[in-house]
Amino acid sequence: MTTTTVPATSTNFDLRTGLNDQRQPLRRRISDMAAMFSDEAAARSKAAVNDELMYEFYDMDVPPTSGDIAYGTSIVYPGRIGDEYYMTKGHFHEVLDTGEIYFCLSGEGYMLMENPEGDVQWERFVPGQGVYVPRRYAHRSINTSDSEPLITFFAFPGHAGHDYGTIEEKGFRKLCVAGASGPEFVDNPKWKAEA
Amino acid sequence: MTTTTVPATSTNFDLRTGLNDQRQPLRRRISDMAAMFSDEAAARSKAAVNDELMYEFYDMDVPPTSGDIAYGTSIVYPGRIGDEYYMTKGHFHEVLDTGEIYFCLSGEGYMLMENPEGDVQWERFVPGQGVYVPRRYAHRSINTSDSEPLITFFAFPGHAGHDYGTIEEKGFRKLCVAGASGPEFVDNPKWKAEA
Repeated sequence: MTTTTVPATSTNFDLRTGLNDQRQPLRRRISDMAAMFSDEAAARSKAAVNDELMYEFYDMDVPPTSGDIAYGTSIVYPGRIGDEYYMTKGHFHEVLDTGEIYFCLSGEGYMLMENPEGDVQWERFVPGQGVYVPRRYAHRSINTSDSEPLITFFAFPGHAGHDYGTIEEKGFRKLCVAGASGPEFVDNPKWKAEA
Repeated sequence: MTTTTVPATSTNFDLRTGLNDQRQPLRRRISDMAAMFSDEAAARSKAAVNDELMYEFYDMDVPPTSGDIAYGTSIVYPGRIGDEYYMTKGHFHEVLDTGEIYFCLSGEGYMLMENPEGDVQWERFVPGQGVYVPRRYAHRSINTSDSEPLITFFAFPGHAGHDYGTIEEKGFRKLCVAGASGPEFVDNPKWKAEA
């Protein structure tokens, strides 16, 4: 059924914090993320002292159709577990053949991407950077700043869905760590060829 | 055919100007827009003296599939033709059943929306405002500032396409004009029930 009147949605995201005061964000703390880090024990120890927020993002409840656009902001806070930067879980889309645009509003970091065939790419986030994640690529945001949140605005096809399980099982092939002269991508020793 | 490696696209939009120095924007000057204003003669006179840029936006050449997201920035400059604010042409999507998200980066104004059945809505743009244009709604951005460009980041389904013709023929049912105490939406005397 087609209704003749559909109200537009209008909502504000604070450009300084990335937060929307009309919606409850989804939040991931250190304890939620510990198993994804190379040094899980260090993450568990840190969480036991202060289980701080690693990132938060919004699900705006857009209809799950290919005619709609799911959107929101994502805020990854600065910090490290050992030499590994704070990051999002990362995921494939359930409908693998769907892409996503991330637009960096503030902060700095990387988008790490990987497809099922093993191609790995990363792109730098700086304010104003638009990173287009191609169809079929899992993606993870990583904050490499010492002090500032990484704030992005994202948009993806309404019907894409999320597959978190594959990355939870296998991990990404690469990690992003603080090296002597800045962030470096290194092989993930915990990566599994098969989920 | 599925290729196993698709390069991610990464490109910067200057958050102050909205411009991307890697791409040629699409530009609309007063002369391109004259027929859309209530006082077309005033627009033609103004264009004859100085045919200034009214707005510009980007087409990032994303594949036209429902798995992809077309995106870019739109910059509407401040100004008026008589009491009518500078604005975009506005359009329906060719695939009518597709929506679009506009995220305001700076400036102020309105998103004017209208569906084929005649429902008309408008939503205010301020920095950080996300305005979701529902499926089936034509949409036009309007800059109501005296001095600042209205800069938005937009994203819509790759397969949506553009129908500019309907609005070019019929117009929108409402106009946005400078009233005694700010912007006002009034009936468009040039609106045609049939294209």
